[in-house]
Amino acid sequence: MHTSSDPLELFFRPQGVVVVGASTDPTKLGYGVARNLLEGGYPGVVHLVNPRGGTLLGHPLYPSVEDVPDPVDLAVILIPAAAVPPVLEACGRRGIRAAIVASGGFRETGPQGAELEAACVEIAHRYAMRLMGPNCIGLVDTHLPLDTTFLPPPGPPVGDVAFISHSGALAAAVIDWARGQGFGFSRLVSLGNQADISEADILPLVAADKHTRAITLYLEGVASGRRFVHATRGLAQQKPIIALKVGRTEAGKHAAASHTGALAGQNQAFEAGFRRAGVLPAATVAQMFHWAKALAWLPLPQADRVLILTNAGGPGVTAADAIAAQGLRLARLTPQTQQLLRAMLPPAASVHNPVDMLASASPEQYAQALRLGLDDPGVDMVMVILPPPPMFSAGAVARAIIPLIQTADKPVVVVPMGDPLVAEAVAHLRAAKVPEYRFPEDAASALGALYRRSQWLRTAAETPLQPVDAAATAAAQHLLEDDATPPGQWLPPQTVRAILTAYGIPTPREAVAHSPTEAAAAAQEMGFPVALKVVSPDLPHKSEAGGVVLGLAGPDEVAAAYESMMARLQAAFPKAHLEGVLVQAMAPAGQEVIVGAVRDPLFGPLVMFGSGGVEVEGLGDVAFAIAPLTPADRAYLLEKTWAGRKLAGFRHLPPADRAAVEDVLARLAQLAWDLPMLAEIEINPLRVSLAGEGALALDVRMRRGQDKPPGFRP
Amino acid sequence: MHTSSDPLELFFRPQGVVVVGASTDPTKLGYGVARNLLEGGYPGVVHLVNPRGGTLLGHPLYPSVEDVPDPVDLAVILIPAAAVPPVLEACGRRGIRAAIVASGGFRETGPQGAELEAACVEIAHRYAMRLMGPNCIGLVDTHLPLDTTFLPPPGPPVGDVAFISHSGALAAAVIDWARGQGFGFSRLVSLGNQADISEADILPLVAADKHTRAITLYLEGVASGRRFVHATRGLAQQKPIIALKVGRTEAGKHAAASHTGALAGQNQAFEAGFRRAGVLPAATVAQMFHWAKALAWLPLPQADRVLILTNAGGPGVTAADAIAAQGLRLARLTPQTQQLLRAMLPPAASVHNPVDMLASASPEQYAQALRLGLDDPGVDMVMVILPPPPMFSAGAVARAIIPLIQTADKPVVVVPMGDPLVAEAVAHLRAAKVPEYRFPEDAASALGALYRRSQWLRTAAETPLQPVDAAATAAAQHLLEDDATPPGQWLPPQTVRAILTAYGIPTPREAVAHSPTEAAAAAQEMGFPVALKVVSPDLPHKSEAGGVVLGLAGPDEVAAAYESMMARLQAAFPKAHLEGVLVQAMAPAGQEVIVGAVRDPLFGPLVMFGSGGVEVEGLGDVAFAIAPLTPADRAYLLEKTWAGRKLAGFRHLPPADRAAVEDVLARLAQLAWDLPMLAEIEINPLRVSLAGEGALALDVRMRRGQDKPPGFRP
Repeated sequence: MHTSSDPLELFFRPQGVVVVGASTDPTKLGYGVARNLLEGGYPGVVHLVNPRGGTLLGHPLYPSVEDVPDPVDLAVILIPAAAVPPVLEACGRRGIRAAIVASGGFRETGPQGAELEAACVEIAHRYAMRLMGPNCIGLVDTHLPLDTTFLPPPGPPVGDVAFISHSGALAAAVIDWARGQGFGFSRLVSLGNQADISEADILPLVAADKHTRAITLYLEGVASGRRFVHATRGLAQQKPIIALKVGRTEAGKHAAASHTGALAGQNQAFEAGFRRAGVLPAATVAQMFHWAKALAWLPLPQADRVLILTNAGGPGVTAADAIAAQGLRLARLTPQTQQLLRAMLPPAASVHNPVDMLASASPEQYAQALRLGLDDPGVDMVMVILPPPPMFSAGAVARAIIPLIQTADKPVVVVPMGDPLVAEAVAHLRAAKVPEYRFPEDAASALGALYRRSQWLRTAAETPLQPVDAAATAAAQHLLEDDATPPGQWLPPQTVRAILTAYGIPTPREAVAHSPTEAAAAAQEMGFPVALKVVSPDLPHKSEAGGVVLGLAGPDEVAAAYESMMARLQAAFPKAHLEGVLVQAMAPAGQEVIVGAVRDPLFGPLVMFGSGGVEVEGLGDVAFAIAPLTPADRAYLLEKTWAGRKLAGFRHLPPADRAAVEDVLARLAQLAWDLPMLAEIEINPLRVSLAGEGALALDVRMRRGQDKPPGFRP
Repeated sequence: MHTSSDPLELFFRPQGVVVVGASTDPTKLGYGVARNLLEGGYPGVVHLVNPRGGTLLGHPLYPSVEDVPDPVDLAVILIPAAAVPPVLEACGRRGIRAAIVASGGFRETGPQGAELEAACVEIAHRYAMRLMGPNCIGLVDTHLPLDTTFLPPPGPPVGDVAFISHSGALAAAVIDWARGQGFGFSRLVSLGNQADISEADILPLVAADKHTRAITLYLEGVASGRRFVHATRGLAQQKPIIALKVGRTEAGKHAAASHTGALAGQNQAFEAGFRRAGVLPAATVAQMFHWAKALAWLPLPQADRVLILTNAGGPGVTAADAIAAQGLRLARLTPQTQQLLRAMLPPAASVHNPVDMLASASPEQYAQALRLGLDDPGVDMVMVILPPPPMFSAGAVARAIIPLIQTADKPVVVVPMGDPLVAEAVAHLRAAKVPEYRFPEDAASALGALYRRSQWLRTAAETPLQPVDAAATAAAQHLLEDDATPPGQWLPPQTVRAILTAYGIPTPREAVAHSPTEAAAAAQEMGFPVALKVVSPDLPHKSEAGGVVLGLAGPDEVAAAYESMMARLQAAFPKAHLEGVLVQAMAPAGQEVIVGAVRDPLFGPLVMFGSGGVEVEGLGDVAFAIAPLTPADRAYLLEKTWAGRKLAGFRHLPPADRAAVEDVLARLAQLAWDLPMLAEIEINPLRVSLAGEGALALDVRMRRGQDKPPGFRP
């Protein structure tokens, strides 16, 4: 029996495996598991359990787990669901601390199954055992090797891409599909129902594997968004991580009353979490693996300038379109490079990017042009387009360029376009671990992923902005404690204003005055123009009652307006108690944006920024990040949206105070992070004055959530 | 010798072909052409020309075209560019009226090549000969069969998809790639430089081919956008047409001064043209053929509701995402269908869409579930997901469902996920002409194309809206003739207003008054509030001069404002001639949109609609269609944009007069169509009042273009 500090490691390095449910019937899945373990080259000991006894593939079938000899530290269980708990008990008693429950029939089938699943987890906890599944196909380590699945041989191709999947069927399909794709797997894990072990548990083990050079994830959700971000952010700095999050269309919006809440769905939360974590979000399974082989095999680019080498114009144009669609730029070759290309190519060739070497391009010309391109300081990445050359074999071209690609410090992808005529080229490239794609679009997409990863790594060490000190946080918390607003309701304006003040988010100046003289003096102090608003507990709808006057330009006007308003209101509402008026400085004209925050059940506070106003939901010019914001997150919010870009000025629109907006973003994000009892916060509009003249939160709402929100904090 | 009413038909049905430049050297392209014609099964006569004489593949090499015997009605020329014109002359003398110039070295290489190309065209015109190329790889008809290319055998797979390509290299790559894709070609045409024959010439011949069931186009541009639309719109009603337009990123914006002009690029023009023509725009080469096989082989759906059948949850979720990403809906099964599914599936199966039959799903269960789905009136299309079933072969499932798919009147696509484990299934499906895809995303994309085609066919017979009669057009033309604005300049306001009036586009009421009494009376007649604006040739900047007063609410105010404005201006500008004032009705509040038109050099007038205001370029909430508008185009403009959708009302925003906007759109589109001398027209804003209360063009600009714009009219 073994004791390890972390039973999770036993899943990948067991000294002995017991298969419970090993079957002598080759059509049964329990036969497949035994076969894959016994015949797949696993160097440890394999034990088989089947109460009916006998032998299987030359190995004895033991009546129960407790009968198998040492060593045994991993159990693979594939028996009817109802029989699983007693077997887990037996494993626990036997000292086994790692179990894969491949059987289905648990939570995925309804309440009864869920009860069974809970019973399994309870047993595992009791024996300090870790549980993979149930309802999964197990795991594969192609290098040990170890294959606990029931999938028909041959096992997955050996390689350097790890794959963690919530879906067993998808993992099985991917393993089969990958056989024709020219890349291989290091570790594969099917997590199933994740009763115990989730992706966040397995990621560190896969990232630590020396054979793994890129990690792919098929996710149907995450147990805790913050935990996922926390786990991946550090690992992603070591190895590239790509995730496909499915169930995008089923993701409901938050039940929320603000624009921010209405716009912040589960997709936005995942996108924001992935961005923070450095996880590259793929749109399809195929794209995930297109990216994985490029990330596993190629150096990262310094910048985004792509050179296209081709032997024909049409595919070159297609490639240029694809490069632009990825947000990458076409490299501009130096005059020197162009001259050298000109010297080696026919006169009709194009030495501008895309470099079209014409149909006569020989393997040597491909190689020489590639060498020149790699040497050009204006080139960060290269895409070599290889339609079947009419006078040479594509294979010869591949052979000529592979040594250059393998030694280059810039990434190069190759696009052999065709099938039988490029098959030899494809085989050479795959053997040399050069990423190849049938069409330029997939190649461009892979280059885009390389570039985005290189960009993310530059800001990966940033820490979140914390512009507000602990005293302010404490003050705001006290304000919330003293406030009696029930959960789900909006806080009163004075509490909102006090919290904003504590967090240093500027609001228009205001003061309560009880006489015309006081009002005029207050206005004089704060500057004109001002607005007057009646203060009366009996007049909740000030405007409708005639209790609001806007645009008063001098002290006399203010005093006169005070007197006439009071006279009018006393006449109209003789029973109302008129306490005085609120004198408010009117904000200067400027651009208007929205800054909001909403609590996501998985990822905690999400910050939104974008074009404000009443039509924010319709226009959808908004972006999200998770709070608190890193400098990179904040830059993203401003660059992604038109609202952010136009702060720099646009045509007649003068530049606005972008720095003030950045400051408010950081403060609001910290506020949302510090005060988890707030469910929604929305500043709409934040009025942004000319550069250097600040920004003012004109209308702000805060809604109280549950006092103890779901625990997402690390 | 043959005479045909249309020499174009000779390209696909020649009785004799002469190859000029046939080479005995197997590494030369001129050998390849001869080989493909002689050994590819072409039933006509093949003649070979090479001045060196001798024989090739058992056929004599004639010294010149003039020496070859009858029949000969198509020449394939593959000799150095400079030698092509005399050979074309010889072909002309020989009575040959169809020639493919495969040689490169023409326009694509510079001015000298362009001269050679022009010489070829001149010769062709002189002999009433049609020319394909130069710089192309010729054509293939797999059914005759006829193969004039030099591509290595085997020829392209035989099938029912036609492909017309501007790029020969891409055609060669596609032919090779398609060998592994399970569909085949009917006719392939490589157009090269299109010195004479362009895609619009060839399309009717390809569409008329009885073996062709779907047409694909790889376009690097079109010679005339309007001609292309005209040619395809009729053909697309008979057969599906899919186009990939490349060079998207190089497409410059129009040199234009209005927002409309700045936003209308070549991509927008192509999109609008394709939409009118019923051409489905593909984003990639692979996607084009994914769509083509579905369009060639499947019936069209009645609506957009998709049923997903799967044997595992994960792939089902992926498929649901992909369906939603296509803008399609998940079908809701009737209770009866659910009951029947429940009866035949295990208890843990899901009988809601996606229907998850679980890993144990047998071929019979797949077939039975598919039958039930096809019978459900709520299902318009079906996607069958087929990850390798652990207990059955995917091939058996394919065999079980193929007969149902072949006889169904609803489209069904199949997704065998994997490679070797699904190879048998793939082979069965391909043999049965059932579209199959490796991943749900490609399958969903194909279903989306089927649905969009079915939608387009519903409106394909619509004629453009012509709300304005010929008298109004004539009046506007006279106004433009009388107007002295030079090309490139903006028309004066009174001309703009008169043209709008002629076309029935409402503008605010206005009248010139010469006294306080006249002004008050005019205001009384048009209704309040009104604005007064001084009329004086000496005061071009009315506002700055103090010559504008807004928001006058009654006749007395108007008269008083008239008197005080005149007194003020007379004092300030004693030398100015004050003619009177313009009294203008002020438009009621409402939603504001932009309606514009700009002349595209390829497609003629393009209409733009969207969110107006100063930020229209930044927000980019705009859509384009080509003028004049069909009802479907107009509906598209309003549905595609937030500006259009919110006319129906949104939250606090009351419904606006959408009918008035529709009317203005139709009128402005006709205006742009009728008056080709206008380069740009922009109404920004069009203020839209509450439903039933109309819309007013508040600010309108029109710019004169060249008097004789490029000829795009059919």
